[in-house]
Amino acid sequence: MTAHANRQLKLAARPFGLPKDSDFEIVAGEVGEPGEGEVLVRVIYLSLDPAMRGWMNEGKSYVRPVRIGEVMRALGLGQVVASGDARFAVGDYVVGLTGVQEMALLQAKDLTPAIPKAAPLPSFLGGLGMPGLTAYFGLLDICAPKPGETVVISGAAGAVGGVVGQIAKLKGCRAVGIAGGAEKCAYVRDELGFDACIDYKAGDLNAGLKEHCPDGIDCYFDNVGGETLDTVLRRINVFARIAFCGAISIYNATEPPAGPKNYLSLLANRAKVQGFIVFDFQDRYPQAIQDLAGWYAEGKLKFREHVVEGRLDDFRDTLVMLFEGRNFGKLVLQIGQP
Amino acid sequence: MTAHANRQLKLAARPFGLPKDSDFEIVAGEVGEPGEGEVLVRVIYLSLDPAMRGWMNEGKSYVRPVRIGEVMRALGLGQVVASGDARFAVGDYVVGLTGVQEMALLQAKDLTPAIPKAAPLPSFLGGLGMPGLTAYFGLLDICAPKPGETVVISGAAGAVGGVVGQIAKLKGCRAVGIAGGAEKCAYVRDELGFDACIDYKAGDLNAGLKEHCPDGIDCYFDNVGGETLDTVLRRINVFARIAFCGAISIYNATEPPAGPKNYLSLLANRAKVQGFIVFDFQDRYPQAIQDLAGWYAEGKLKFREHVVEGRLDDFRDTLVMLFEGRNFGKLVLQIGQP
Repeated sequence: MTAHANRQLKLAARPFGLPKDSDFEIVAGEVGEPGEGEVLVRVIYLSLDPAMRGWMNEGKSYVRPVRIGEVMRALGLGQVVASGDARFAVGDYVVGLTGVQEMALLQAKDLTPAIPKAAPLPSFLGGLGMPGLTAYFGLLDICAPKPGETVVISGAAGAVGGVVGQIAKLKGCRAVGIAGGAEKCAYVRDELGFDACIDYKAGDLNAGLKEHCPDGIDCYFDNVGGETLDTVLRRINVFARIAFCGAISIYNATEPPAGPKNYLSLLANRAKVQGFIVFDFQDRYPQAIQDLAGWYAEGKLKFREHVVEGRLDDFRDTLVMLFEGRNFGKLVLQIGQP
Repeated sequence: MTAHANRQLKLAARPFGLPKDSDFEIVAGEVGEPGEGEVLVRVIYLSLDPAMRGWMNEGKSYVRPVRIGEVMRALGLGQVVASGDARFAVGDYVVGLTGVQEMALLQAKDLTPAIPKAAPLPSFLGGLGMPGLTAYFGLLDICAPKPGETVVISGAAGAVGGVVGQIAKLKGCRAVGIAGGAEKCAYVRDELGFDACIDYKAGDLNAGLKEHCPDGIDCYFDNVGGETLDTVLRRINVFARIAFCGAISIYNATEPPAGPKNYLSLLANRAKVQGFIVFDFQDRYPQAIQDLAGWYAEGKLKFREHVVEGRLDDFRDTLVMLFEGRNFGKLVLQIGQP
């Protein structure tokens, strides 16, 4: 049995606030050949996701926390170098929970194929991957917007938000993004085709919402939580639906964050806030992927990936880019050659 | 045309915090005979509802605010003294938005009959009226509990909460109330048949929920908002549903109340909070009333009314009882003889 050299990034301590270098350690080791039903994958791209911050915390959540000393959980895209399963051959590209490591021994049943001819490989971690699916189900199932309604999206230049607004447009809605900075807003408006994008760093969000949502807000797809959510609550319509997808603004909070003080608006407007996780829609992935890939092929859906070329050692610095809003599009760390 | 003497309580100023005597004024006047489609009603019982506090505020809500100088809005029960509509005869008892006044000229189409033989008259403002319907739709439609699930109810000794828990029991759920004081808790547990009731004034609500909801919380029917909501959020299960019916704890707040800081729990648990108003279910009132009256007749549903005998002038003092938790059961002010 051949042993393959591997390097793994493990969680060394539970971060307090923004993760520090000392919260991780890199360990060299070896990985063996795949057994029956397994494949050995050389990891090329690692997906950096806001949710990773939650996985590092103790406490009950939708997945168990990463244990101290365990390889950091991550979605990744890689190439099969050895296969013990008929579904994948050497050379195939696959997406799955590779973890933050250079080589990953994985169950074939947990992997999905990535088709290089269909789209750039990193987009299988973006618009054609989990972020795209998250956008799809959160918007269409939780918000269920009707043509003519106004959909507001925070994190609009992000991997999820960008897709949400484009699907909203495809469904005949008014799409209004919220993003940080003029460059991101220009991209959201001019390239992704949102009706408007409000730069929350430039001024008064409430005034921006008032201007760009003259008929109020029917749906809000929330990726950020915090004060943005609180401000949106002031401007929602009767029967508004808020898909609560993420709260990146408070994931690194070192003291309990304030709650949305305008929550009474839910009562006055008979509105709902609903948290969701893409994994709950697993049985409907095939249809969603077909829709997303179809729209992409027709040029109706655009994605943008922000690829950082580096090594395993750059994981922390790259992750922090997310929380500081320094990425522009789906953030991936490239640690190998495609 | 005969003129009938009337006294009306009008909103004189928008209250800041708890309403004061000077926020109202009583005006004597006259009311004429009913025209076509109208009935003249002698008001007997006035319903005191937490929502009244919101109606006194300016700002957008589910109904327009009561204007300064306008008769205070109220549900009431009275007897028809003159009728211009075939649906109601002199002597009939009716329920409707009478306002806080002794005589009310109302559209017959906006009234529902109260049947003295079926139940004590005040219960048509309680368990067989809006509070009962609110409990019915909020629990069955918004929470939609399944047999075996745990339903937590705040304001459990109140007009709405008491009915919610009893319906939850009828549907095979575990019903856990939250109420203020040992006497109310004993009533909720021993008379209404909840599985448990936590006295929030007596100690640690979180510990109480932990003890009495060993399998977590699947549904929460919230009448109070504030810290109670925040504490419940810590103990909800995956796919929990929160029916947001009221927030009596903050209706009289004189500065912006804190929001629920544990709102991230909605995300981790893919849970929802949904505001609702009973009026949105109007087309289904007949079925609901039939169910409620049926359960009541079979002895499966108990209500309790807290009748304050007084006059129009006692409106403010009686209303304040609600916000200080001094009522025990559905609070009504009796201003006339049945």
